[in-house]
Amino acid sequence: MTPEDAIAAAAAEYSNWGRWGGGDVLGTINFIDETKRRQGAACARTGVSFSLAQRFDMNGPQKGWRRRTNPVHTMLDTGMDAVHGDQGFPHGFGGADDVIAMPLQCSTQWDGLGHIFDHGRAWNGRPADRVVTGEGDQVTGIEHMAAPVAGRGVLLDVGRVFGGGELPDGFAITEEHLNATAEAHGVAVGRGDIVCVRTGQLSRVRREGWGDYAGGPAPGLSFWSAGWLHRTEIAAVATDTWGFEVRPNEFEGAFQPLHQVVIPHIGLLVGEMWDLDALAAHCADDGVYEFFLAAAPLPITGAVGSPVNPLAIK
Amino acid sequence: MTPEDAIAAAAAEYSNWGRWGGGDVLGTINFIDETKRRQGAACARTGVSFSLAQRFDMNGPQKGWRRRTNPVHTMLDTGMDAVHGDQGFPHGFGGADDVIAMPLQCSTQWDGLGHIFDHGRAWNGRPADRVVTGEGDQVTGIEHMAAPVAGRGVLLDVGRVFGGGELPDGFAITEEHLNATAEAHGVAVGRGDIVCVRTGQLSRVRREGWGDYAGGPAPGLSFWSAGWLHRTEIAAVATDTWGFEVRPNEFEGAFQPLHQVVIPHIGLLVGEMWDLDALAAHCADDGVYEFFLAAAPLPITGAVGSPVNPLAIK
Amino acid sequence: MTPEDAIAAAAAEYSNWGRWGGGDVLGTINFIDETKRRQGAACARTGVSFSLAQRFDMNGPQKGWRRRTNPVHTMLDTGMDAVHGDQGFPHGFGGADDVIAMPLQCSTQWDGLGHIFDHGRAWNGRPADRVVTGEGDQVTGIEHMAAPVAGRGVLLDVGRVFGGGELPDGFAITEEHLNATAEAHGVAVGRGDIVCVRTGQLSRVRREGWGDYAGGPAPGLSFWSAGWLHRTEIAAVATDTWGFEVRPNEFEGAFQPLHQVVIPHIGLLVGEMWDLDALAAHCADDGVYEFFLAAAPLPITGAVGSPVNPLAIK
Amino acid sequence: MTPEDAIAAAAAEYSNWGRWGGGDVLGTINFIDETKRRQGAACARTGVSFSLAQRFDMNGPQKGWRRRTNPVHTMLDTGMDAVHGDQGFPHGFGGADDVIAMPLQCSTQWDGLGHIFDHGRAWNGRPADRVVTGEGDQVTGIEHMAAPVAGRGVLLDVGRVFGGGELPDGFAITEEHLNATAEAHGVAVGRGDIVCVRTGQLSRVRREGWGDYAGGPAPGLSFWSAGWLHRTEIAAVATDTWGFEVRPNEFEGAFQPLHQVVIPHIGLLVGEMWDLDALAAHCADDGVYEFFLAAAPLPITGAVGSPVNPLAIK
Repeated sequence: MTPEDAIAAAAAEYSNWGRWGGGDVLGTINFIDETKRRQGAACARTGVSFSLAQRFDMNGPQKGWRRRTNPVHTMLDTGMDAVHGDQGFPHGFGGADDVIAMPLQCSTQWDGLGHIFDHGRAWNGRPADRVVTGEGDQVTGIEHMAAPVAGRGVLLDVGRVFGGGELPDGFAITEEHLNATAEAHGVAVGRGDIVCVRTGQLSRVRREGWGDYAGGPAPGLSFWSAGWLHRTEIAAVATDTWGFEVRPNEFEGAFQPLHQVVIPHIGLLVGEMWDLDALAAHCADDGVYEFFLAAAPLPITGAVGSPVNPLAIK
Repeated sequence: MTPEDAIAAAAAEYSNWGRWGGGDVLGTINFIDETKRRQGAACARTGVSFSLAQRFDMNGPQKGWRRRTNPVHTMLDTGMDAVHGDQGFPHGFGGADDVIAMPLQCSTQWDGLGHIFDHGRAWNGRPADRVVTGEGDQVTGIEHMAAPVAGRGVLLDVGRVFGGGELPDGFAITEEHLNATAEAHGVAVGRGDIVCVRTGQLSRVRREGWGDYAGGPAPGLSFWSAGWLHRTEIAAVATDTWGFEVRPNEFEGAFQPLHQVVIPHIGLLVGEMWDLDALAAHCADDGVYEFFLAAAPLPITGAVGSPVNPLAIK
Repeated sequence: MTPEDAIAAAAAEYSNWGRWGGGDVLGTINFIDETKRRQGAACARTGVSFSLAQRFDMNGPQKGWRRRTNPVHTMLDTGMDAVHGDQGFPHGFGGADDVIAMPLQCSTQWDGLGHIFDHGRAWNGRPADRVVTGEGDQVTGIEHMAAPVAGRGVLLDVGRVFGGGELPDGFAITEEHLNATAEAHGVAVGRGDIVCVRTGQLSRVRREGWGDYAGGPAPGLSFWSAGWLHRTEIAAVATDTWGFEVRPNEFEGAFQPLHQVVIPHIGLLVGEMWDLDALAAHCADDGVYEFFLAAAPLPITGAVGSPVNPLAIK
Repeated sequence: MTPEDAIAAAAAEYSNWGRWGGGDVLGTINFIDETKRRQGAACARTGVSFSLAQRFDMNGPQKGWRRRTNPVHTMLDTGMDAVHGDQGFPHGFGGADDVIAMPLQCSTQWDGLGHIFDHGRAWNGRPADRVVTGEGDQVTGIEHMAAPVAGRGVLLDVGRVFGGGELPDGFAITEEHLNATAEAHGVAVGRGDIVCVRTGQLSRVRREGWGDYAGGPAPGLSFWSAGWLHRTEIAAVATDTWGFEVRPNEFEGAFQPLHQVVIPHIGLLVGEMWDLDALAAHCADDGVYEFFLAAAPLPITGAVGSPVNPLAIK
């Protein structure tokens, strides 16, 4: 089977086009209903909270691929201006203010539904060129996901179970690995869950330097996990890697073929560059791998992705 | 009493300097403990969720004051490039990507603890010029608040109770208004709560146009509410206005004197430009004014503020 | 004649498509040859120099139309950091550094040949969607004009000759006005010249406030001046207005129809928002309306416009 | 002699503080008078023109040092939007528009007088923290140099004369090298000239990859050339390297000590990352090493540097 045939077969078999009507803009986030959110909230048993975001600054992994830089944060006013300058405010008032310029997918992020296309088709079968124009995503912009993305999170620490903490680059995580990890953790993955898959790559690059974290070899989900991602009816999946799927990709000459199936065909929300380490350590300690997860994107009108600071509360 | 004397008196009376040790970087967010987060989660009774963020786009209120623009979102790649161009990807793969440039306080946001100073002093008494330099907030950067900001939210819809839906510009919300609103709602404000005060101004400008929403006349908290903000030991306060306090300010020639007390002296986290309308309508319907609130800032290293999409779940 | 017919007729009559070969990327800049540059340099008779650029800062005219903001200039390091902070440099060294974010056409600028299309055709008849993609202008990017744009400049101060200094908004400058102004000045316009047409609008908005300078009513070139712009074989034209042609446009419901003829069909380089006031005052004094003009765009790869600081030397 | 003593001695010996009055904002650009500009124009003998700028795009040398990125150029509208989308314009009109975000010193540039300080002092002896604040350079912003920077340029191709085309990294160009090169070229350097020193490093990195061009080892002017730079009364100096002076610097532990002398004390305008290769080839061919040079910075208010496209006309 050629790569294109494999992609086409998976696209056909796992398609959710039309499942939530022709006008749908949410994809698998539709699986997060009020019950699921209550169930998520019920996982906040002790109240301890974890940020699953990397820090947004120039010490990030981006090297300029497709014009992606690290975030550039600059000050408009500072405490120095307040103390040694003359800000022109009365009564001893002083202030600092700042700006940022960044690609929306430079660090911890959600891929919007308009981020990836298959043969010119976007989510729900729409023509990609009518969806994402120079003015942004006119149909499935990330702003539509402003409210719903909170519910039950599940951590699958495949790195710990199969890699002694860290999977090697190129390790393809299959359905079997996912199921075995869930079983080892004593946790069940269900419809509407947000599944966080830890590979351990982020721990490694933190220790050894970014290297080619942004686009180079990495552990990640196998192309062949698409069926699992579809069948489980999860709402979203997120990893601690740049691109969520294994790299090099499993087909010669391919580029992110799992993206090509899960975003436009399954309508799956995909998170990348999440920092799962502190949460994973806590889960390993108490043996509880479910939690409340709130991971609302910034509602940037027409965006095809968004930086996010996902909060996990156990 | 001169404005400066009033500010100094409030600063002295309500100071939390040293309350959480000399090294504190969280201020009143310290009031959010695990118990409070569990209590917050318990407020998620039906699972309905609300985004309290305005949309981030060029249709915002900013007009350039102190170099604040509306967010500029641009595309790096589009669906058009995928369909009609040649992105150079194999197997029918196509993608869209985007960037943003924006002031961190251009839309729905948290003021960081390094945002406002009083006579050259930042939160906890530190010299402002040692805290916020050209490289950003070296001590109390918003990244320190990545994990804790989730707990019990309370809506005080003062606009509804005292304004028939919308308070007029210049309306100063006092302790008495806050208490009476809480009583009318049948809700109690407690230590560690995140209090959302709705004035209704955002509803009005949505209907009538932004006008001078960014910095002009507005309803908002009275300078004299500082005692209430301190005594209640709330973790944070947020409004649907540009600047959270009433404008014009209550002292002639003053500029945001309540900020000058609550940020550097109380260490209070302040939210601005929140969109409380949908949540308020729901609360008015079911009479329940408490909810689970997750409002994690983006952990931008050294930032003195952050855009945020606060999620309220009832 | 309908607007579309008029545009089509002018496009057909004044087309330069193919004039410099199928691969041309320079348009009328081809008219600037070495002789013309020598002739320009010979106009530098006294050595006095004028910048024809407005200042690039937040006090500009942009109000957000099509996501155009004023330039946002921010500091990375400051003298305050050098003096009161710790920049980490040895031996008393200190430094300041800065960044800018701006639309390329926010202030004094050149329109690139990829800026405007007519019925999907770009300069020289190329399909616009093959020329300017999400990655920029792949064919006629402004970088191709890095070297040639210097030569003889001619000022036609129509504002002075026909408006007592300032033409009223809506004043359409025709061929007759242009010729009469040249005659009044005692200057001849020739092949390869860069013609600066002063309307005086910038003087007026400087005095009265920007108002709708960016896109509102303005004096400017008449649609019917297209023939003159073609016939004279000038290399470029620039005005002190936002959009170079008269506004409101002369056809009902039209949008910048002269652009639609001169950029894609004539291949004319168009400058906008130039500040011609100081130069005009000098020319009025000495009666000399020709000068050396160096107006090289920044060679931003793939850009469809460029900020520019045009230097006039008399 | 310690590095600090050497720097202090050079600063004292070559200081131009007060030379043009206490209010001066131009430094050695004062040496460019009208006569010099006429003399420059007279060098335009054939009319051939050269851009001395590198291209501004993501393929540049920056790697994030002190938050310096390569320029990020993005499109607001494209030819694709014009052809396949609906831009909402009448009569077949279509347009493309773009924005840029970039450090002002990311590519071919001028260092402003507010760029470098010595022991807290900026050009003309002013306190650095009163000159360059969070709002930019309040005194010597690059906008003050909008008009004067055009005159006689001289190329000293030290790379060709002493390096067979390219000097090795670490090669310190002394006064002797400069004089011998001028002699070899048969050109005299005089007061008010803009001197372009070609090392050949840019040719090498173009061939071999950027490597550490941005801040790493490089040929460049020796610290001990400060006297020559002062005595010759040149208006400006520019090189084809990142930092104009030799690297590693000649004092152990130093950082750009020649900058520390020439910018705050001499008031010298310094250009970096200029592309002198095409001009140098032409000069080698015809043996003429002088030319008309127009190198006006963009007048960005308060900027401590500016991108520039210097035009050389022979």
